[in-house]
Amino acid sequence: MQRFRTVAIVGVGLIGASLGLGLLRRRLANRVIGIGRREESLRVALTRGALSHTTLHLAEGVAEADLVIVCTPVGRIADDIRLAAQNCQSGTLITDVGSTKAEIVAQVAGFLPSGVTFIGSHPLAGGERSGPQFAEVDLFDGRAVIVTPDKTTRPDDLDALWALWTDLGARVLRMTAEEHDRALAATSHLPHLVAAALAAATPDELLDLTAGGWADSTRIAAGDPELWRQIFASNRGPLRAALARFEDRLAALRESIERPDDRALLEILATAKERRDIVSRTSSTGGTA
Amino acid sequence: MQRFRTVAIVGVGLIGASLGLGLLRRRLANRVIGIGRREESLRVALTRGALSHTTLHLAEGVAEADLVIVCTPVGRIADDIRLAAQNCQSGTLITDVGSTKAEIVAQVAGFLPSGVTFIGSHPLAGGERSGPQFAEVDLFDGRAVIVTPDKTTRPDDLDALWALWTDLGARVLRMTAEEHDRALAATSHLPHLVAAALAAATPDELLDLTAGGWADSTRIAAGDPELWRQIFASNRGPLRAALARFEDRLAALRESIERPDDRALLEILATAKERRDIVSRTSSTGGTA
Repeated sequence: MQRFRTVAIVGVGLIGASLGLGLLRRRLANRVIGIGRREESLRVALTRGALSHTTLHLAEGVAEADLVIVCTPVGRIADDIRLAAQNCQSGTLITDVGSTKAEIVAQVAGFLPSGVTFIGSHPLAGGERSGPQFAEVDLFDGRAVIVTPDKTTRPDDLDALWALWTDLGARVLRMTAEEHDRALAATSHLPHLVAAALAAATPDELLDLTAGGWADSTRIAAGDPELWRQIFASNRGPLRAALARFEDRLAALRESIERPDDRALLEILATAKERRDIVSRTSSTGGTA
Repeated sequence: MQRFRTVAIVGVGLIGASLGLGLLRRRLANRVIGIGRREESLRVALTRGALSHTTLHLAEGVAEADLVIVCTPVGRIADDIRLAAQNCQSGTLITDVGSTKAEIVAQVAGFLPSGVTFIGSHPLAGGERSGPQFAEVDLFDGRAVIVTPDKTTRPDDLDALWALWTDLGARVLRMTAEEHDRALAATSHLPHLVAAALAAATPDELLDLTAGGWADSTRIAAGDPELWRQIFASNRGPLRAALARFEDRLAALRESIERPDDRALLEILATAKERRDIVSRTSSTGGTA
Protein backbone atom coordinates (compact mmCIF):
# COMPACT_ATOMS: atom_id res chain seq x y z
CA MET A 1 0.00 0.00 0.00
CA GLN A 2 1.47 3.32 -1.05
CA ARG A 3 1.82 5.59 1.95
CA PHE A 4 3.91 8.37 0.40
CA ARG A 5 4.33 9.89 -3.03
CA THR A 6 7.87 11.15 -2.60
CA VAL A 7 10.26 10.20 0.19
CA ALA A 8 13.61 12.00 0.51
CA ILE A 9 16.38 10.12 2.30
CA VAL A 10 19.22 12.31 3.54
CA GLY A 11 22.34 10.15 3.89
CA VAL A 12 22.42 6.82 2.08
CA GLY A 13 24.53 4.56 4.32
CA LEU A 14 23.38 1.15 5.50
CA ILE A 15 20.23 2.48 7.20
CA GLY A 16 19.27 5.04 4.55
CA ALA A 17 19.74 2.62 1.67
CA SER A 18 17.90 -0.18 3.51
CA LEU A 19 15.00 2.23 4.07
CA GLY A 20 14.92 3.11 0.37
CA LEU A 21 15.05 -0.55 -0.59
CA GLY A 22 12.21 -1.39 1.79
CA LEU A 23 10.07 1.53 0.63
CA LEU A 24 10.45 0.80 -3.08
CA ARG A 25 10.29 -3.00 -2.99
CA ARG A 26 7.20 -2.94 -0.76
CA ARG A 27 5.69 -0.17 -2.92
CA LEU A 28 5.25 2.06 0.12
CA ALA A 29 6.52 5.08 -1.83
CA ASN A 30 6.28 6.10 -5.44
CA ARG A 31 9.64 7.87 -5.57
CA VAL A 32 12.64 7.70 -3.24
CA ILE A 33 15.11 10.52 -3.67
CA GLY A 34 18.55 9.82 -2.21
CA ILE A 35 20.49 12.84 -1.00
CA GLY A 36 24.19 12.36 -0.37
CA ARG A 37 27.52 14.12 -0.25
CA ARG A 38 29.34 11.64 -2.44
CA GLU A 39 28.32 10.61 -5.97
CA GLU A 40 29.72 7.14 -5.31
CA SER A 41 27.40 6.24 -2.41
CA LEU A 42 24.40 7.49 -4.35
CA ARG A 43 25.43 5.43 -7.37
CA VAL A 44 25.81 2.28 -5.25
CA ALA A 45 22.41 2.81 -3.61
CA LEU A 46 20.78 3.49 -6.99
CA THR A 47 22.31 0.33 -8.48
CA ARG A 48 21.08 -1.68 -5.49
CA GLY A 49 17.54 -0.48 -6.25
CA ALA A 50 17.37 1.52 -3.02
CA LEU A 51 16.62 4.85 -4.73
CA SER A 52 14.68 6.06 -7.75
CA HIS A 53 16.39 9.48 -7.94
CA THR A 54 19.59 10.99 -6.54
CA THR A 55 20.95 14.46 -5.84
CA LEU A 56 23.87 16.09 -4.06
CA HIS A 57 21.67 19.07 -3.12
CA LEU A 58 19.57 18.72 0.00
CA ALA A 59 17.36 21.76 -0.74
CA GLU A 60 16.52 20.39 -4.17
CA GLY A 61 16.02 16.82 -2.96
CA VAL A 62 13.47 17.62 -0.26
CA ALA A 63 11.47 20.19 -2.28
CA GLU A 64 8.71 17.82 -3.36
CA ALA A 65 8.91 15.25 -0.55
CA ASP A 66 5.96 14.47 1.68
CA LEU A 67 8.33 12.53 3.97
CA VAL A 68 11.99 13.29 4.72
CA ILE A 69 14.11 10.74 6.63
CA VAL A 70 17.43 12.06 7.91
CA CYS A 71 19.98 9.22 8.14
CA THR A 72 23.20 11.17 8.64
CA PRO A 73 25.58 10.80 11.63
CA VAL A 74 24.19 12.03 14.98
CA GLY A 75 26.35 15.16 14.99
CA ARG A 76 24.83 16.37 11.71
CA ILE A 77 21.18 15.37 12.12
CA ALA A 78 19.86 18.61 13.68
CA ASP A 79 21.47 20.74 10.97
CA ASP A 80 20.10 18.51 8.23
CA ILE A 81 16.60 18.59 9.72
CA ARG A 82 16.67 22.41 9.87
CA LEU A 83 17.93 22.66 6.31
CA ALA A 84 15.27 20.21 5.11
CA ALA A 85 12.55 22.09 7.01
CA GLN A 86 13.49 25.35 5.35
CA ASN A 87 13.31 23.87 1.87
CA CYS A 88 10.37 21.46 1.90
CA GLN A 89 6.73 22.20 1.22
CA SER A 90 4.13 22.79 3.92
CA GLY A 91 2.68 19.50 5.17
CA THR A 92 5.98 17.61 5.01
CA LEU A 93 6.77 15.17 7.81
CA ILE A 94 10.43 14.90 8.82
CA THR A 95 11.93 12.09 10.90
CA ASP A 96 15.45 10.80 11.56
CA VAL A 97 17.10 7.54 12.63
CA GLY A 98 19.63 8.91 15.13
CA SER A 99 20.86 7.01 18.20
CA THR A 100 20.08 9.94 20.53
CA LYS A 101 17.00 12.12 20.64
CA ALA A 102 16.75 14.86 23.28
CA GLU A 103 19.63 16.99 21.98
CA ILE A 104 18.30 16.80 18.42
CA VAL A 105 14.81 17.83 19.52
CA ALA A 106 16.28 20.78 21.47
CA GLN A 107 18.43 21.91 18.54
CA VAL A 108 15.50 21.72 16.12
CA ALA A 109 12.93 23.44 18.35
CA GLY A 110 11.93 26.86 16.99
CA PHE A 111 13.50 26.22 13.60
CA LEU A 112 10.55 24.48 11.95
CA PRO A 113 8.30 26.59 9.67
CA SER A 114 4.62 26.15 10.48
CA GLY A 115 3.17 23.21 8.58
CA VAL A 116 6.40 21.21 8.82
CA THR A 117 6.56 18.52 11.49
CA PHE A 118 9.47 16.64 13.04
CA ILE A 119 9.09 13.40 15.02
CA GLY A 120 12.20 11.47 16.02
CA SER A 121 12.66 7.78 15.23
CA HIS A 122 15.34 5.31 16.25
CA PRO A 123 15.34 1.86 14.67
CA LEU A 124 17.38 -0.61 16.79
CA ALA A 125 18.94 -2.13 13.70
CA GLY A 126 22.24 -1.95 11.92
CA GLY A 127 25.44 -3.84 12.34
CA GLU A 128 29.20 -3.59 12.20
CA ARG A 129 29.01 -3.21 8.44
CA SER A 130 28.26 0.19 7.02
CA GLY A 131 27.59 1.59 3.57
CA PRO A 132 24.79 1.25 1.00
CA GLN A 133 26.35 -1.88 -0.49
CA PHE A 134 25.14 -3.80 2.58
CA ALA A 135 21.54 -2.52 2.36
CA GLU A 136 18.91 -5.13 3.22
CA VAL A 137 15.25 -4.95 2.31
CA ASP A 138 14.36 -6.66 5.61
CA LEU A 139 16.74 -4.77 7.89
CA PHE A 140 13.88 -3.50 10.08
CA ASP A 141 11.84 -6.68 10.07
CA GLY A 142 11.10 -7.72 13.65
CA ARG A 143 13.24 -4.93 15.10
CA ALA A 144 12.14 -2.36 17.65
CA VAL A 145 11.77 1.22 16.42
CA ILE A 146 11.32 3.90 19.06
CA VAL A 147 9.38 7.02 18.02
CA THR A 148 9.47 10.14 20.21
CA PRO A 149 6.48 12.43 19.59
CA ASP A 150 5.88 15.35 21.98
CA LYS A 151 2.88 17.39 23.08
CA THR A 152 2.85 19.39 19.85
CA THR A 153 2.74 16.31 17.61
CA ARG A 154 -0.46 15.98 15.58
CA PRO A 155 -2.06 12.51 15.79
CA ASP A 156 -2.19 12.22 11.97
CA ASP A 157 1.56 12.72 11.69
CA LEU A 158 2.27 10.16 14.39
CA ASP A 159 -0.08 7.70 12.67
CA ALA A 160 1.74 8.16 9.36
CA LEU A 161 5.15 7.60 10.95
CA TRP A 162 3.86 4.60 12.93
CA ALA A 163 2.45 3.08 9.73
CA LEU A 164 5.75 3.59 7.91
CA TRP A 165 7.74 1.56 10.41
CA THR A 166 5.01 -1.05 10.83
CA ASP A 167 4.88 -1.52 7.06
CA LEU A 168 8.64 -2.16 7.14
CA GLY A 169 8.04 -4.97 9.65
CA ALA A 170 9.17 -3.14 12.78
CA ARG A 171 7.69 -3.22 16.26
CA VAL A 172 7.02 0.43 17.12
CA LEU A 173 7.40 1.80 20.65
CA ARG A 174 6.54 5.29 21.83
CA MET A 175 8.69 7.13 24.37
CA THR A 176 9.69 10.70 25.21
CA ALA A 177 13.06 11.80 23.85
CA GLU A 178 14.44 11.79 27.41
CA GLU A 179 13.14 8.29 28.18
CA HIS A 180 14.70 7.11 24.93
CA ASP A 181 18.08 8.57 25.77
CA ARG A 182 18.12 7.11 29.28
CA ALA A 183 17.16 3.68 27.95
CA LEU A 184 19.64 3.63 25.07
CA ALA A 185 22.45 4.90 27.30
CA ALA A 186 22.07 1.64 29.23
CA THR A 187 21.31 -0.78 26.39
CA SER A 188 23.54 0.57 23.62
CA HIS A 189 25.90 3.43 24.49
CA LEU A 190 27.27 1.93 27.71
CA PRO A 191 27.95 -1.48 26.08
CA HIS A 192 29.91 0.34 23.40
CA LEU A 193 31.93 2.29 25.94
CA VAL A 194 32.67 -0.88 27.92
CA ALA A 195 33.61 -2.87 24.81
CA ALA A 196 36.00 -0.10 23.77
CA ALA A 197 37.61 0.00 27.24
CA LEU A 198 37.99 -3.79 27.18
CA ALA A 199 39.61 -3.86 23.74
CA ALA A 200 41.86 -0.89 24.60
CA ALA A 201 42.92 -2.54 27.88
CA THR A 202 44.07 -5.74 26.20
CA PRO A 203 47.83 -5.62 25.56
CA ASP A 204 48.79 -6.13 21.90
CA GLU A 205 50.93 -9.15 22.72
CA LEU A 206 47.95 -11.00 24.18
CA LEU A 207 45.60 -10.56 21.21
CA ASP A 208 46.74 -13.94 19.94
CA LEU A 209 45.41 -15.55 23.12
CA THR A 210 41.86 -14.25 22.83
CA ALA A 211 39.00 -16.56 21.96
CA GLY A 212 35.25 -16.36 21.41
CA GLY A 213 34.46 -14.67 24.73
CA TRP A 214 36.76 -11.72 24.08
CA ALA A 215 35.64 -11.58 20.45
CA ASP A 216 31.96 -11.36 21.41
CA SER A 217 32.52 -8.87 24.24
CA THR A 218 34.52 -6.48 22.07
CA ARG A 219 32.74 -6.91 18.71
CA ILE A 220 31.08 -3.48 18.75
CA ALA A 221 34.40 -1.79 19.51
CA ALA A 222 35.05 -2.22 15.77
CA GLY A 223 32.49 0.53 15.09
CA ASP A 224 33.48 3.87 13.56
CA PRO A 225 35.22 5.97 16.30
CA GLU A 226 33.91 9.31 14.99
CA LEU A 227 30.29 8.10 14.84
CA TRP A 228 30.49 6.89 18.41
CA ARG A 229 32.24 10.03 19.60
CA GLN A 230 29.23 11.97 18.32
CA ILE A 231 26.76 9.63 20.03
CA PHE A 232 28.58 9.83 23.39
CA ALA A 233 28.83 13.62 23.11
CA SER A 234 25.13 13.84 22.40
CA ASN A 235 24.06 11.81 25.46
CA ARG A 236 26.46 12.74 28.28
CA GLY A 237 24.07 12.86 31.24
CA PRO A 238 22.25 9.56 30.71
CA LEU A 239 25.52 7.85 29.76
CA ARG A 240 27.09 9.05 33.03
CA ALA A 241 24.19 7.55 34.99
CA ALA A 242 24.38 4.21 33.15
CA LEU A 243 28.15 4.11 33.64
CA ALA A 244 27.68 4.68 37.39
CA ARG A 245 25.34 1.68 37.60
CA PHE A 246 27.88 -0.45 35.72
CA GLU A 247 30.74 0.66 37.96
CA ASP A 248 28.66 -0.17 41.00
CA ARG A 249 28.11 -3.75 39.79
CA LEU A 250 31.77 -4.11 38.78
CA ALA A 251 32.89 -2.90 42.23
CA ALA A 252 30.52 -5.36 43.89
CA LEU A 253 31.96 -8.19 41.78
CA ARG A 254 35.52 -7.18 42.63
CA GLU A 255 34.78 -6.94 46.32
CA SER A 256 33.07 -10.33 46.39
CA ILE A 257 36.12 -11.92 44.71
CA GLU A 258 38.62 -10.16 46.99
CA ARG A 259 37.00 -10.93 50.32
CA PRO A 260 36.04 -13.64 49.13
CA ASP A 261 32.25 -13.68 49.50
CA ASP A 262 31.11 -16.63 47.38
CA ARG A 263 27.47 -16.07 48.06
CA ALA A 264 27.53 -12.42 46.95
CA LEU A 265 29.61 -13.32 43.88
CA LEU A 266 27.24 -16.10 42.85
CA GLU A 267 24.27 -13.80 43.35
CA ILE A 268 25.58 -11.18 40.92
CA LEU A 269 26.66 -13.80 38.37
CA ALA A 270 23.22 -15.43 38.63
CA THR A 271 21.45 -12.08 38.12
CA ALA A 272 23.63 -11.41 35.07
CA LYS A 273 22.90 -14.85 33.63
CA GLU A 274 19.17 -14.43 34.29
CA ARG A 275 19.02 -11.12 32.38
CA ARG A 276 21.12 -12.49 29.53
CA ASP A 277 18.94 -15.59 29.28
CA ILE A 278 15.76 -13.45 29.12
CA VAL A 279 17.15 -11.65 26.08
CA SER A 280 18.24 -14.92 24.44
CA ARG A 281 14.73 -16.30 24.85
CA THR A 282 12.88 -13.25 23.57
CA SER A 283 15.15 -11.69 20.96
CA SER A 284 14.61 -12.45 17.31
CA THR A 285 17.98 -11.62 15.78
CA GLY A 286 20.99 -9.50 16.34
CA GLY A 287 21.14 -6.03 14.83
CA THR A 288 23.26 -3.54 16.74
CA ALA A 289 21.98 -0.23 18.00
CA MET B 1 48.58 -42.74 14.31
CA GLN B 2 47.99 -44.34 17.68
CA ARG B 3 49.71 -42.32 20.41
CA PHE B 4 48.18 -43.94 23.47
CA ARG B 5 46.83 -47.34 24.39
CA THR B 6 44.44 -46.24 27.10
CA VAL B 7 43.32 -42.68 27.79
CA ALA B 8 41.21 -41.92 30.87
CA ILE B 9 39.04 -38.80 30.72
CA VAL B 10 37.88 -37.53 34.09
CA GLY B 11 34.71 -35.47 33.58
CA VAL B 12 32.78 -35.93 30.33
CA GLY B 13 31.23 -32.53 29.63
CA LEU B 14 31.61 -30.71 26.31
CA ILE B 15 35.42 -30.65 26.46
CA GLY B 16 35.92 -34.16 27.84
CA ALA B 17 33.50 -35.76 25.39
CA SER B 18 34.95 -33.80 22.44
CA LEU B 19 38.41 -35.05 23.43
CA GLY B 20 37.16 -38.63 23.53
CA LEU B 21 35.48 -38.24 20.17
CA GLY B 22 38.62 -36.75 18.63
CA LEU B 23 40.87 -39.47 20.11
CA LEU B 24 38.72 -42.37 18.96
CA ARG B 25 37.69 -41.06 15.53
CA ARG B 26 41.25 -40.12 14.65
CA ARG B 27 42.48 -43.43 16.08
CA LEU B 28 44.89 -41.65 18.41
CA ALA B 29 43.94 -43.97 21.28
CA ASN B 30 42.93 -47.57 21.44
CA ARG B 31 40.61 -47.18 24.43
CA VAL B 32 39.03 -44.11 25.98
CA ILE B 33 37.66 -44.62 29.47
CA GLY B 34 35.18 -41.98 30.57
CA ILE B 35 35.02 -41.31 34.31
CA GLY B 36 32.02 -39.38 35.57
CA ARG B 37 29.82 -38.79 38.58
CA ARG B 38 26.54 -39.30 36.78
CA GLU B 39 25.54 -42.39 34.79
CA GLU B 40 23.52 -40.21 32.45
CA SER B 41 26.43 -38.09 31.17
CA LEU B 42 28.54 -41.22 30.65
CA ARG B 43 25.71 -42.88 28.73
CA VAL B 44 25.28 -39.82 26.46
CA ALA B 45 29.02 -39.65 25.78
CA LEU B 46 29.17 -43.39 25.09
CA THR B 47 26.22 -43.16 22.67
CA ARG B 48 27.91 -40.24 20.87
CA GLY B 49 30.96 -42.46 20.30
CA ALA B 50 33.14 -40.34 22.57
CA LEU B 51 34.09 -43.19 24.91
CA SER B 52 34.83 -46.89 24.61
CA HIS B 53 34.41 -47.65 28.33
CA THR B 54 32.80 -45.88 31.29
CA THR B 55 33.07 -45.99 35.07
CA LEU B 56 31.90 -44.00 38.08
CA HIS B 57 35.12 -44.86 39.96
CA LEU B 58 38.12 -42.67 39.29
CA ALA B 59 40.64 -45.03 40.88
CA GLU B 60 39.43 -47.90 38.74
CA GLY B 61 39.22 -45.80 35.56
CA VAL B 62 42.80 -44.51 35.66
CA ALA B 63 44.43 -47.80 36.72
CA GLU B 64 45.54 -48.86 33.24
CA ALA B 65 45.75 -45.45 31.57
CA ASP B 66 48.96 -44.18 29.99
CA LEU B 67 47.32 -40.73 29.70
CA VAL B 68 44.80 -39.13 32.08
CA ILE B 69 43.03 -35.91 31.06
CA VAL B 70 41.20 -34.15 33.88
CA CYS B 71 38.23 -32.17 32.49
CA THR B 72 36.35 -31.35 35.68
CA PRO B 73 35.52 -27.79 36.91
CA VAL B 74 38.52 -25.71 38.00
CA GLY B 75 37.72 -26.04 41.70
CA ARG B 76 37.97 -29.83 41.54
CA ILE B 77 40.90 -30.31 39.16
CA ALA B 78 43.73 -30.44 41.73
CA ASP B 79 41.88 -33.02 43.85
CA ASP B 80 41.15 -35.15 40.79
CA ILE B 81 44.77 -34.99 39.64
CA ARG B 82 46.00 -36.11 43.07
CA LEU B 83 43.48 -38.92 43.19
CA ALA B 84 44.41 -40.03 39.67
CA ALA B 85 48.13 -39.85 40.50
CA GLN B 86 47.67 -42.12 43.51
CA ASN B 87 45.85 -44.74 41.49
CA CYS B 88 47.57 -44.86 38.13
CA GLN B 89 50.57 -46.91 37.10
CA SER B 90 54.12 -45.56 36.99
CA GLY B 91 54.84 -43.81 33.68
CA THR B 92 51.40 -42.28 33.37
CA LEU B 93 51.13 -38.72 32.05
CA ILE B 94 48.40 -36.53 33.55
CA THR B 95 47.12 -33.29 32.07
CA ASP B 96 44.03 -31.13 32.56
CA VAL B 97 42.05 -28.57 30.57
CA GLY B 98 41.39 -25.98 33.30
CA SER B 99 41.10 -22.23 32.70
CA THR B 100 43.71 -21.42 35.37
CA LYS B 101 47.04 -23.05 36.00
CA ALA B 102 49.29 -21.71 38.80
CA GLU B 103 46.97 -22.64 41.68
CA ILE B 104 46.50 -26.15 40.31
CA VAL B 105 50.26 -26.64 39.93
CA ALA B 106 50.79 -25.45 43.51
CA GLN B 107 48.09 -27.71 44.91
CA VAL B 108 49.44 -30.74 43.05
CA ALA B 109 53.14 -30.16 43.88
CA GLY B 110 54.49 -32.80 46.23
CA PHE B 111 51.52 -35.10 45.74
CA LEU B 112 52.73 -36.92 42.66
CA PRO B 113 54.32 -40.38 43.16
CA SER B 114 57.62 -40.70 41.34
CA GLY B 115 57.08 -41.88 37.78
CA VAL B 116 53.83 -39.96 37.43
CA THR B 117 53.98 -36.65 35.60
CA PHE B 118 51.59 -33.70 35.45
CA ILE B 119 51.72 -31.00 32.76
CA GLY B 120 48.91 -28.47 32.55
CA SER B 121 46.99 -27.77 29.34
CA HIS B 122 44.36 -25.18 28.47
CA PRO B 123 42.57 -25.42 25.14
CA LEU B 124 40.97 -22.07 24.21
CA ALA B 125 37.85 -23.78 22.99
CA GLY B 126 34.34 -24.32 24.23
CA GLY B 127 31.20 -22.29 23.99
CA GLU B 128 28.05 -21.29 25.81
CA ARG B 129 26.73 -24.81 25.40
CA SER B 130 27.84 -27.45 27.84
CA GLY B 131 27.37 -31.20 28.18
CA PRO B 132 28.51 -34.26 26.22
CA GLN B 133 25.54 -34.03 23.84
CA PHE B 134 27.28 -31.06 22.17
CA ALA B 135 30.62 -32.85 21.72
CA GLU B 136 32.38 -32.07 18.44
CA VAL B 137 35.14 -34.12 16.88
CA ASP B 138 36.76 -30.92 15.54
CA LEU B 139 36.34 -28.76 18.65
CA PHE B 140 40.10 -28.19 18.94
CA ASP B 141 40.79 -27.78 15.24
CA GLY B 142 42.62 -24.51 14.64
CA ARG B 143 42.33 -23.46 18.30
CA ALA B 144 45.18 -22.41 20.56
CA VAL B 145 46.13 -24.82 23.34
CA ILE B 146 48.51 -23.52 26.00
CA VAL B 147 50.70 -26.10 27.74
CA THR B 148 52.57 -25.20 30.93
CA PRO B 149 55.56 -27.48 31.57
CA ASP B 150 58.02 -26.54 34.33
CA LYS B 151 61.69 -27.21 35.08
CA THR B 152 60.97 -30.74 36.25
CA THR B 153 59.11 -31.73 33.07
CA ARG B 154 60.85 -34.45 31.06
CA PRO B 155 61.15 -33.62 27.31
CA ASP B 156 59.55 -36.96 26.34
CA ASP B 157 56.42 -36.17 28.33
CA LEU B 158 56.15 -32.69 26.85
CA ASP B 159 56.60 -34.15 23.36
CA ALA B 160 53.79 -36.64 23.96
CA LEU B 161 51.42 -33.94 25.20
CA TRP B 162 52.39 -31.62 22.35
CA ALA B 163 51.72 -34.39 19.82
CA LEU B 164 48.31 -35.11 21.36
CA TRP B 165 47.05 -31.56 20.85
CA THR B 166 48.69 -31.21 17.46
CA ASP B 167 47.03 -34.43 16.31
CA LEU B 168 43.70 -32.93 17.37
CA GLY B 169 44.36 -29.97 15.06
CA ALA B 170 45.34 -27.44 17.73
CA ARG B 171 48.05 -24.80 17.64
CA VAL B 172 50.18 -25.49 20.74
CA LEU B 173 51.81 -22.69 22.73
CA ARG B 174 54.17 -23.08 25.67
CA MET B 175 54.05 -20.76 28.68
CA THR B 176 54.73 -20.89 32.40
CA ALA B 177 51.66 -21.37 34.59
CA GLU B 178 52.03 -17.78 35.81
CA GLU B 179 52.33 -16.34 32.30
CA HIS B 180 49.23 -18.32 31.34
CA ASP B 181 47.22 -16.97 34.25
CA ARG B 182 48.22 -13.37 33.59
CA ALA B 183 47.34 -13.69 29.90
CA LEU B 184 44.01 -15.43 30.42
CA ALA B 185 43.02 -12.97 33.15
CA ALA B 186 43.10 -10.28 30.45
CA THR B 187 41.75 -12.23 27.49
CA SER B 188 39.11 -14.41 29.14
CA HIS B 189 38.42 -13.85 32.83
CA LEU B 190 38.17 -10.05 32.69
CA PRO B 191 35.80 -10.11 29.67
CA HIS B 192 33.58 -12.47 31.63
CA LEU B 193 33.60 -10.22 34.70
CA VAL B 194 32.81 -7.17 32.58
CA ALA B 195 30.04 -8.94 30.66
CA ALA B 196 28.47 -10.01 33.95
CA ALA B 197 28.64 -6.47 35.36
CA LEU B 198 27.08 -5.11 32.17
CA ALA B 199 24.21 -7.61 32.20
CA ALA B 200 23.64 -7.12 35.94
CA ALA B 201 23.64 -3.31 35.54
CA THR B 202 20.89 -3.35 32.90
CA PRO B 203 17.50 -2.73 34.51
CA ASP B 204 14.95 -5.48 33.82
CA GLU B 205 12.50 -3.07 32.22
CA LEU B 206 15.06 -2.10 29.57
CA LEU B 207 15.91 -5.64 28.40
CA ASP B 208 13.28 -5.25 25.69
CA LEU B 209 15.27 -2.32 24.26
CA THR B 210 18.55 -4.17 23.82
CA ALA B 211 19.84 -5.08 20.37
CA GLY B 212 22.82 -6.86 18.86
CA GLY B 213 25.45 -4.74 20.59
CA TRP B 214 24.20 -5.56 24.08
CA ALA B 215 23.62 -9.18 23.06
CA ASP B 216 27.21 -9.60 21.83
CA SER B 217 28.76 -7.77 24.79
CA THR B 218 26.91 -9.84 27.37
CA ARG B 219 26.82 -13.25 25.63
CA ILE B 220 29.36 -14.90 27.94
CA ALA B 221 27.43 -13.73 31.00
CA ALA B 222 25.13 -16.67 30.24
CA GLY B 223 27.88 -19.04 31.44
CA ASP B 224 27.47 -21.20 34.53
CA PRO B 225 27.86 -18.92 37.63
CA GLU B 226 29.47 -21.64 39.77
CA LEU B 227 32.07 -22.54 37.12
CA TRP B 228 33.05 -18.89 36.77
CA ARG B 229 33.11 -18.35 40.52
CA GLN B 230 35.72 -21.11 40.71
CA ILE B 231 37.77 -19.59 37.89
CA PHE B 232 37.76 -16.11 39.46
CA ALA B 233 38.64 -17.56 42.86
CA SER B 234 41.53 -19.46 41.33
CA ASN B 235 43.09 -16.42 39.63
CA ARG B 236 42.58 -13.45 41.97
CA GLY B 237 45.91 -11.64 41.60
CA PRO B 238 46.15 -11.59 37.80
CA LEU B 239 42.44 -10.79 37.53
CA ARG B 240 42.91 -7.81 39.85
CA ALA B 241 45.72 -6.50 37.62
CA ALA B 242 43.69 -6.94 34.43
CA LEU B 243 40.71 -5.24 36.04
CA ALA B 244 42.89 -2.29 37.03
CA ARG B 245 43.99 -1.85 33.40
CA PHE B 246 40.36 -1.98 32.28
CA GLU B 247 39.26 0.56 34.90
CA ASP B 248 42.07 2.85 33.82
CA ARG B 249 40.84 2.82 30.20
CA LEU B 250 37.22 3.24 31.28
CA ALA B 251 38.14 6.23 33.46
CA ALA B 252 40.06 7.78 30.55
CA LEU B 253 37.03 7.33 28.29
CA ARG B 254 34.72 8.89 30.88
CA GLU B 255 37.01 11.82 31.42
CA SER B 256 37.39 12.50 27.71
CA ILE B 257 33.59 12.52 27.32
CA GLU B 258 33.03 14.75 30.36
CA ARG B 259 35.58 17.44 29.57
CA PRO B 260 35.00 17.01 26.54
CA ASP B 261 38.34 16.11 24.95
CA ASP B 262 37.42 14.85 21.47
CA ARG B 263 40.99 14.08 20.51
CA ALA B 264 41.61 11.90 23.58
CA LEU B 265 38.26 10.16 23.12
CA LEU B 266 38.91 9.41 19.46
CA GLU B 267 42.36 8.12 20.29
CA ILE B 268 41.05 5.52 22.75
CA LEU B 269 38.21 4.48 20.44
CA ALA B 270 40.69 4.15 17.56
CA THR B 271 43.04 2.00 19.66
CA ALA B 272 40.10 -0.20 20.64
CA LYS B 273 38.99 -0.56 17.04
CA GLU B 274 42.54 -1.32 15.92
CA ARG B 275 42.92 -4.17 18.43
CA ARG B 276 39.47 -5.56 17.62
CA ASP B 277 40.21 -5.44 13.89
CA ILE B 278 43.50 -7.32 14.38
CA VAL B 279 41.60 -10.17 16.02
CA SER B 280 38.90 -10.16 13.30
CA ARG B 281 41.57 -10.47 10.65
CA THR B 282 43.58 -13.23 12.30
CA SER B 283 41.07 -15.35 14.20
CA SER B 284 39.81 -18.55 12.67
CA THR B 285 36.60 -19.16 14.55
CA GLY B 286 34.92 -18.36 17.81
CA GLY B 287 35.22 -20.79 20.69
CA THR B 288 35.02 -19.24 24.12
CA ALA B 289 37.71 -19.62 26.75
